[in-house]
Amino acid sequence: MQETIMKLIEENRYKEVRNEIAEMNIVDIAQLIMELDRTKLLILFRILPKEIAADVFSYVSLELQQYIIESITDKEISNIVNDLFIDDAVDFLEEMPSNVVKKVLRNTDEDTRKLINQFLNYPDYSAGSVMTIEFVDLKKEMIVKEALNHIRATGVDKETINTCYVIDKGRKLEGVLSIRKLILAEEDVIIGDIMNEDVIYANTLDDQETVADLFKKYDLTALPVVDNEHRLVGIVTIDDIIDIIDQENTEDLHKMAAMEPLEEEYLKTSPFILAKHRIVWLLVLMISATFTGIIIQKYEKLLQSMVILTSFIPMIMDTGGNAGSQASTLIIRGMALGEIKTSDMLKVFLKEFQVSILAGSVLAVVNFFRLVIFEHVNYLMALVVCFSLLCTVVLAKLVGGVLPMVAKKVHLDPAIMAGPLITTLVDVLALSIYFEIASKFLNL
Amino acid sequence: MQETIMKLIEENRYKEVRNEIAEMNIVDIAQLIMELDRTKLLILFRILPKEIAADVFSYVSLELQQYIIESITDKEISNIVNDLFIDDAVDFLEEMPSNVVKKVLRNTDEDTRKLINQFLNYPDYSAGSVMTIEFVDLKKEMIVKEALNHIRATGVDKETINTCYVIDKGRKLEGVLSIRKLILAEEDVIIGDIMNEDVIYANTLDDQETVADLFKKYDLTALPVVDNEHRLVGIVTIDDIIDIIDQENTEDLHKMAAMEPLEEEYLKTSPFILAKHRIVWLLVLMISATFTGIIIQKYEKLLQSMVILTSFIPMIMDTGGNAGSQASTLIIRGMALGEIKTSDMLKVFLKEFQVSILAGSVLAVVNFFRLVIFEHVNYLMALVVCFSLLCTVVLAKLVGGVLPMVAKKVHLDPAIMAGPLITTLVDVLALSIYFEIASKFLNL
Repeated sequence: MQETIMKLIEENRYKEVRNEIAEMNIVDIAQLIMELDRTKLLILFRILPKEIAADVFSYVSLELQQYIIESITDKEISNIVNDLFIDDAVDFLEEMPSNVVKKVLRNTDEDTRKLINQFLNYPDYSAGSVMTIEFVDLKKEMIVKEALNHIRATGVDKETINTCYVIDKGRKLEGVLSIRKLILAEEDVIIGDIMNEDVIYANTLDDQETVADLFKKYDLTALPVVDNEHRLVGIVTIDDIIDIIDQENTEDLHKMAAMEPLEEEYLKTSPFILAKHRIVWLLVLMISATFTGIIIQKYEKLLQSMVILTSFIPMIMDTGGNAGSQASTLIIRGMALGEIKTSDMLKVFLKEFQVSILAGSVLAVVNFFRLVIFEHVNYLMALVVCFSLLCTVVLAKLVGGVLPMVAKKVHLDPAIMAGPLITTLVDVLALSIYFEIASKFLNL
Repeated sequence: MQETIMKLIEENRYKEVRNEIAEMNIVDIAQLIMELDRTKLLILFRILPKEIAADVFSYVSLELQQYIIESITDKEISNIVNDLFIDDAVDFLEEMPSNVVKKVLRNTDEDTRKLINQFLNYPDYSAGSVMTIEFVDLKKEMIVKEALNHIRATGVDKETINTCYVIDKGRKLEGVLSIRKLILAEEDVIIGDIMNEDVIYANTLDDQETVADLFKKYDLTALPVVDNEHRLVGIVTIDDIIDIIDQENTEDLHKMAAMEPLEEEYLKTSPFILAKHRIVWLLVLMISATFTGIIIQKYEKLLQSMVILTSFIPMIMDTGGNAGSQASTLIIRGMALGEIKTSDMLKVFLKEFQVSILAGSVLAVVNFFRLVIFEHVNYLMALVVCFSLLCTVVLAKLVGGVLPMVAKKVHLDPAIMAGPLITTLVDVLALSIYFEIASKFLNL
């Protein structure tokens, strides 16, 4: 079907395109638009049926949203923006340069404009910045029949009707009611009697990660957001939460590779910005990595007389780095999912100790045989290297397992205590141990 | 409230506990149960109102589910299992030892038992293994009024009524209809006229990751699953998808740290299993790390005469490792989110080249000054080291950016081309370059 449409567009047979589109899913239409060149894209956008134009707009990329706004008439802007759900309007305007924002707001009706401005003022990544206002509100004095009629009258413009919110005259949140319960109830039952008063909610200033955790814990599909006076000001829906979960995961991943998290997609980010995000960390790590240089120079004589010791340096450093990364990855992820708490620090310490003894011993033994049999290294040297290996693995896993927890305890993001930072720390310790053992046992 | 209940439980005042619990959210009750010791837990579980016992059961940990089943009577098992949604029953039984599974199935009615067995046969991580059967099915010949009555009659046992599925006599999936559309329609409208025939669906054998991507792309809250003859056999709901998204992210994260992904939570896994999952990779990496040892031995004379060269080895290796990790993390994540495709390989190569020249140059220059001014290294040596640094960064980012894409092209999981593997490869190349440059320019 996509090829048919592309062909029709090439041949400028837009009337037929319109018919084909009538059958398509909004998300697929948006995707189609994103694959067209700029002129055709605008024509296609303009022939979209009015009812779906705003929805399709909300699904195209920010880049294209900006291009479209800059290219269409004021009247057309007005139609789109007044039709968008508030959260989609805010998502879009948050990222626009001020001339675009001004152009849009100039063409928005007054009430909507006030709302948008209010929402744009919520802190980034807060519940307020992702919520929307198109929810169903009921009064607890209503009976089921009235409530259903109210929904029929107003439901077409709501983001969702699957969960309804009961508020009082002052807009204070009193209860929540699923559409299922509403439909299954008798017509004359009072809303106040069947609503759930034990409402799970968030505050406008709560962090989006906290909100996502509520969704995960209680298997919600929508969550009410209240202000400081417990007045219902918006709802967050599950589709936004899924995007937030991916965002948070990407952020953690980037931090663990010692980068400032990117805000845009990789391919859309300029090399200059990519370099900037990585530089700071690379510099910090390099400076601390010179400690290893200092250690090596301290043992200069040892290395000069036994260059073979140098050949094992990379192996010991790599093993320590890997072992430490593995431990810290497990712990950081466990903490992010709520499976490990800071009070578990002793448990983690003991567990990593046991794991490292097991893993480290196997490694040491395997390598002892490898060195002695295949590389003809003398027994004492092999013993020194393998024992250092064991110490390195134990140290690495203890450091890798515990540091993220320490970070969390002092209110730092545990994700920064990952790969590169742990690796560098472990390298310094591992090399010190290696050379100390070597100098003691090889009689120098 | 939690402390009140704990206190009442301590004092064995279970009648009052029952009253308190009547107000509590099912998820919170499950959490409370998980914090009690074994005897009290069983008593509390047994006094739960029948309507919520199965739901609470589905929320406690697998460990506790097993303990409860092993401790209660056959009749009690029967009540729970026949009440559970099929997907929750399957989730639980999938992980149980066979004696528990036999005990449960012995006490399940015949139809349910057949279904459970059928579902247990679906491959792990497939749509079939996470779907459930309690969905609303309608006929297209129905009118809205009939449909709503049908829902009222059967809706209480459904996992969700928010999306209804239209099937024909042979159970073939014909259309989908949201409860919103149903409620907003006139009573005498025919279902077939308002249903959406362009249904987004999955096949029972589709991978759960593919299913999750459909949810993300189309902002779904439920997805129908069909068999090879397009008959509707179940639905997947968004709450399960959220768990799957977290699972897949954790799996990728573990693979990137070169570990076999864990199946259980970290704290619940024995040290022996934790060691086993890490060992294989540590061994593989160690063997490849010995290549670095060979390289160093090749340049033995060089190092013996200029031990200072050795002191820069860790710095060069760490930088290469970090730079490579950063690149591979960005690319792996971008591919997982669908933002980067294998056809983008040239773009990625060019971008990483530009970023690495920028980042590498800054690093090289900063370190040149650091070495010459603070560590009194002679100019030529500093130049050799810093130039090697630049080459290392460029190489690391190119390798780190491109290898995951190559992996995907040959149908391997790109996540394995992360940290440790990239690091080792980069180390070997970086050291070779470093020593080559050093021996050429320092006239040896």
